Amino acid sequence: MAVYTDINEDDLTAFLAEYDAGHLMSYKGIAEGVENSNFLLHTDKAPHILTLYEKRVDPNDLPFFLGLMQHLADNGLSCPLPVARKDGEILGHLAGRPAALISFLEGMWLRKPEARHCRDVGVALAQMHLAGEGFSITRKNALSVEGWRPLWDKSEPRADEVEKGLKDEIRAELSFLEQNWPLGLPSGVIHADLFPDNVFFLDDRLSGLIDFYFACNDYFAYDLSVCLNAWCFEKDWCYNITKGMALIEGYQSVRPLSAAEIEALPVFCRGSALRFFLTRLYDWIMTPPGAMVTKKDPKEYLRKLRFHQHIKSAVEYGLEAPVTA
Amino acid sequence: MAVYTDINEDDLTAFLAEYDAGHLMSYKGIAEGVENSNFLLHTDKAPHILTLYEKRVDPNDLPFFLGLMQHLADNGLSCPLPVARKDGEILGHLAGRPAALISFLEGMWLRKPEARHCRDVGVALAQMHLAGEGFSITRKNALSVEGWRPLWDKSEPRADEVEKGLKDEIRAELSFLEQNWPLGLPSGVIHADLFPDNVFFLDDRLSGLIDFYFACNDYFAYDLSVCLNAWCFEKDWCYNITKGMALIEGYQSVRPLSAAEIEALPVFCRGSALRFFLTRLYDWIMTPPGAMVTKKDPKEYLRKLRFHQHIKSAVEYGLEAPVTA
Repeated sequence: MAVYTDINEDDLTAFLAEYDAGHLMSYKGIAEGVENSNFLLHTDKAPHILTLYEKRVDPNDLPFFLGLMQHLADNGLSCPLPVARKDGEILGHLAGRPAALISFLEGMWLRKPEARHCRDVGVALAQMHLAGEGFSITRKNALSVEGWRPLWDKSEPRADEVEKGLKDEIRAELSFLEQNWPLGLPSGVIHADLFPDNVFFLDDRLSGLIDFYFACNDYFAYDLSVCLNAWCFEKDWCYNITKGMALIEGYQSVRPLSAAEIEALPVFCRGSALRFFLTRLYDWIMTPPGAMVTKKDPKEYLRKLRFHQHIKSAVEYGLEAPVTA
Repeated sequence: MAVYTDINEDDLTAFLAEYDAGHLMSYKGIAEGVENSNFLLHTDKAPHILTLYEKRVDPNDLPFFLGLMQHLADNGLSCPLPVARKDGEILGHLAGRPAALISFLEGMWLRKPEARHCRDVGVALAQMHLAGEGFSITRKNALSVEGWRPLWDKSEPRADEVEKGLKDEIRAELSFLEQNWPLGLPSGVIHADLFPDNVFFLDDRLSGLIDFYFACNDYFAYDLSVCLNAWCFEKDWCYNITKGMALIEGYQSVRPLSAAEIEALPVFCRGSALRFFLTRLYDWIMTPPGAMVTKKDPKEYLRKLRFHQHIKSAVEYGLEAPVTA
């Protein structure tokens, strides 16, 4: 939850004068999003989200993120849409930061998702993978396998503070993943961060996906593994196979996985568990005590990683056993 | 800025079923209010604010706060209005806390108010003082002169950490105020916390007052002194007499001050400066380093207090010199 940058009425009025978005009625900082500052604006036309991009976002990536939202919406995916300014630009500046005005998507993220919602998430994820086809800009996944060791190197000296023996365990896992990372699987634009707070539901039906600020080009099945980690574990960190089954089935109802993708799923799950473990570990160690952010416990993803290390085949995630030829 | 308590979809749906407020479309935690958790709800009827009252609010005070908003609105003041449930109650429970659904007031608080806005605030403050007349419930001001010494006693042992010599200075000020606090002046329901973030403007006109959670019965002129402290100092903590003049003139255009109130104004300004100094000092000392709240620098109000100690008459605040008889 975060509003890192406040905005004053004069700057906001000048910013909105570039748009045809209606007459400003109110704006409130909202406690969502951990990377950027977000405001919910009411105008006499419609509600909007105003996002100020903070320093953790590379401004060079903004054309990818904003263009992707447009491309996905053009291809039928329900997601927020950047509003174009009168001069056609979709990126402006406000309070010294790059800023975009984005359509407001009604709906709520589920604090207690059930298996049927996981199925909807699988469906939407596969729809996003298909809708991303033909998008002209690409963006490397900086948080995939090659990015993990440099990230780990920054945290390693203090890793044993989180749990004794962690250094050796993570080093071994990194080596395993570097040596066994799949090659040549189906890839394209992935969301890479499709956690429950990025999926909106309205009247128990999925109403849209938000927050494409980790989107990049990578393996589709890796994106599915992110969702398995994010949606299919309970609050006690135990895997819920009913949810996993629903998520995978939903995904495959739109985009069936190949045999090679299915085989790779356990490694992808280890990889995505490590990825979130590493960023949370880094934040845990580096965030100064007085900072106004909720530090997420890295141990959650350590537990998930250890679970995946014991998985022998994707069947254990709930994937129906393939019919033997 | 704060959302202390998150709410889940099931609890919220059950809560809203008690109201006739429309069909829920979205809810977002908003980064406003320091005492309670606030959510901005969209329904197919209208936006609303949902407030969960956190532990710093005494539940016994809620009938006063919510009833006051109703009373003030009935008497023509623009302020948010508690929405009654189907059973007529205006207070419900959600996520283990007392909770109220409140109408959403469009408008924005000014980050850079000018003198003309201060005049509008003076007008609105006086209108509120008149509108509060006849309200049947009373609430003692726990943060007036009798409340300061007990508050100070908790902070005193560590006060010199903020500034050397502070102990003696504050002790002397407390004694002065206790001995010189005015008696028998016009009183009634006051806002007691009418800072810029509690006054909304729309198209440069004051659109309403919010946040009555410090409202209580006390001297009207004391409430004016709170506004002089909150609105009429610049970011460099210097007093702006143009703003002071506008605020007082606006107030008097609705409710002229008596000679005794005018004479008491410098003491009230010292008192209200001390009041905000003391609560900020307490929060400064008591808030643990990792807590997710912005600690306000108590020195701002120390500076204001010292300014008021040198004021000889309300004329120095911008009040027009009384015509000598």
